[in-house]
Amino acid sequence: MAHVVHRLGLPTALARMAEYIHADYLRWPAFDKCARVASHSADGVIELMPIADARTYAFKYVNGHPKNTQGGLPTVMAFGVLADVDTGVPELLSELTLTTALRTAAMSVVAARALARPGSRRMALIGNGAQSEFQALAFHHLLGIEEIRLFDTDPAATAKLMDNLAHTALRLLACDSIAQAVRGADIVTTVTADKTNATILTPELIEPGMHVNGVGGDCPGKTELHPDVLRMASVFVEYEPQTRIEGDLQHLPADFAVTELWRVLGGQASGRRSDAQVTLFDSVGFALEDFSALRFLRDAARELGLGQLLPLIPGLANPKDLYQLIRASAPQPRAATATPAAHAPRHPRAKTPALSA
Amino acid sequence: MAHVVHRLGLPTALARMAEYIHADYLRWPAFDKCARVASHSADGVIELMPIADARTYAFKYVNGHPKNTQGGLPTVMAFGVLADVDTGVPELLSELTLTTALRTAAMSVVAARALARPGSRRMALIGNGAQSEFQALAFHHLLGIEEIRLFDTDPAATAKLMDNLAHTALRLLACDSIAQAVRGADIVTTVTADKTNATILTPELIEPGMHVNGVGGDCPGKTELHPDVLRMASVFVEYEPQTRIEGDLQHLPADFAVTELWRVLGGQASGRRSDAQVTLFDSVGFALEDFSALRFLRDAARELGLGQLLPLIPGLANPKDLYQLIRASAPQPRAATATPAAHAPRHPRAKTPALSA
Repeated sequence: MAHVVHRLGLPTALARMAEYIHADYLRWPAFDKCARVASHSADGVIELMPIADARTYAFKYVNGHPKNTQGGLPTVMAFGVLADVDTGVPELLSELTLTTALRTAAMSVVAARALARPGSRRMALIGNGAQSEFQALAFHHLLGIEEIRLFDTDPAATAKLMDNLAHTALRLLACDSIAQAVRGADIVTTVTADKTNATILTPELIEPGMHVNGVGGDCPGKTELHPDVLRMASVFVEYEPQTRIEGDLQHLPADFAVTELWRVLGGQASGRRSDAQVTLFDSVGFALEDFSALRFLRDAARELGLGQLLPLIPGLANPKDLYQLIRASAPQPRAATATPAAHAPRHPRAKTPALSA
Repeated sequence: MAHVVHRLGLPTALARMAEYIHADYLRWPAFDKCARVASHSADGVIELMPIADARTYAFKYVNGHPKNTQGGLPTVMAFGVLADVDTGVPELLSELTLTTALRTAAMSVVAARALARPGSRRMALIGNGAQSEFQALAFHHLLGIEEIRLFDTDPAATAKLMDNLAHTALRLLACDSIAQAVRGADIVTTVTADKTNATILTPELIEPGMHVNGVGGDCPGKTELHPDVLRMASVFVEYEPQTRIEGDLQHLPADFAVTELWRVLGGQASGRRSDAQVTLFDSVGFALEDFSALRFLRDAARELGLGQLLPLIPGLANPKDLYQLIRASAPQPRAATATPAAHAPRHPRAKTPALSA
């Protein structure tokens, strides 16, 4: 993904990612969907996120370990695979650590295009960690945000963001409090990382017409919003069964009404209905967005000549004869002096290009 | 895995695989288990099989597409990953197509050691496809089987097996019918591949004291045994919830009694109790066996100096600063002449050795 961004530029990469996500959300009923499969441990979680349509299968491996940064590792690391539904052959293996930040930001913009007030120019960005620059630039380049008011409990995080984005046309203002950052904003993006039930936004901070882009609350016990913020808003979600478990929605009753975003994008449900309405996208990250991201990566890698072949699936002269792969290794009284070189697997089928990022 | 087998020899590789599987089955309660996550399509299935203990996480990607062989591809292809539970860092990416055949054969022997009559020397092998040689050699080298009576609806499959194993000390006899192959056998292994409810074994073929190693019936609608064969036997399974869905057990009522194999291996339940008892291992393949196989591959790769580093996870100087990976790619009015080489990701963290097979 880093090579793709280098070649296309970040604005184009984000724009194309958003196009792929939007196009796939319009095909929502075509997908075989399930909630992610999570393995929780004391300090984190490892998840698999599979999804498929009739032609293409995808899954993402992703972890979440907030303590990792103490040891110099990212909180979130990810990789993923695209495969052919007709044969099961894996076609692309890619890093998704960097890609997840881009696809999450692109998804936020896809939702905000349908939910934020037209002409939104000012955003509050609460949480200035690893994903924050991508949110800032996606809203800047794709939605026209010109000013971003920043807050993080760690001033070093805000300073890092301001340094990273100093070269852009964005007006960046560091704020002393969440309230100061949020006041007067058209859009409020929360992208905090603590694995805890935090209360980043309370009802009194919310102004008429705001769009809240809630990104950081994305697993059981990891939330950002006071439940009354959801109650005063029209709430939109990616995939309702998953968001009820993982989103800020987890604190609300099972019958609290929400709208799946694909219905808004497809014209089957209303998004924003008035300038005074408060809209809220309770984003948790859904497998479909990784499916879109992997499709984009596959197409971009082909166009740009990136990637390399990995011998992940053995090539077989006779597909019913797996033993041929090791036949030369088996005890062979009549050929005991065969050279080691002759024992190596022959003609590995190299169907799986890997993008290194 | 092909390189590991070349270096260790197949008998040693199978023996060590069986040791790893046996050791992990003795730690059964330590694992966070779930049924595999399957995505079914018209001609096949793609599955993810995750499992973890407190230290190590593993998953396997595996497909099943019986029509693949018509296009020169294997019916089953697989790869898998080991990761560190404490951080989520992936540690090993390996092919598992060849490995699945070895681990399935090793698992069959682990079960047969507890369930087959001591001194078993003769086996029937029904289904002579991709996995059959591995079953034959595992039972030969690890359990003392000396004679194997072969049957397949496709004579070419049997001829392929006999040619592949011609150099071994096994007595191989091609039979004209299932009944001829099964008659007088100590162990009957069924490893057919059709995705259909077949009836390979019927009750009249089963003799007192036989051990049935049922390997081919492993997903809904893909079975090999007449239900009465299960009713006349003591039935042992890997993970009961999964086998009730996927095994030959799918044709029996939910209260049909079975015994999970780990309890037999650990001494908490009886295996074979008499020479006349019919025992049946309704094998479907459980994620724990792939966990064991990946552990074996990791250890063997370290011992033998095999594998290569893959830049699947980006290295970050500041783990909270993902943007650094593409900062040089963003528009930078003050550094517009930076060379392309400076834009490449620096110091990718290369934590993931990949075994190519």
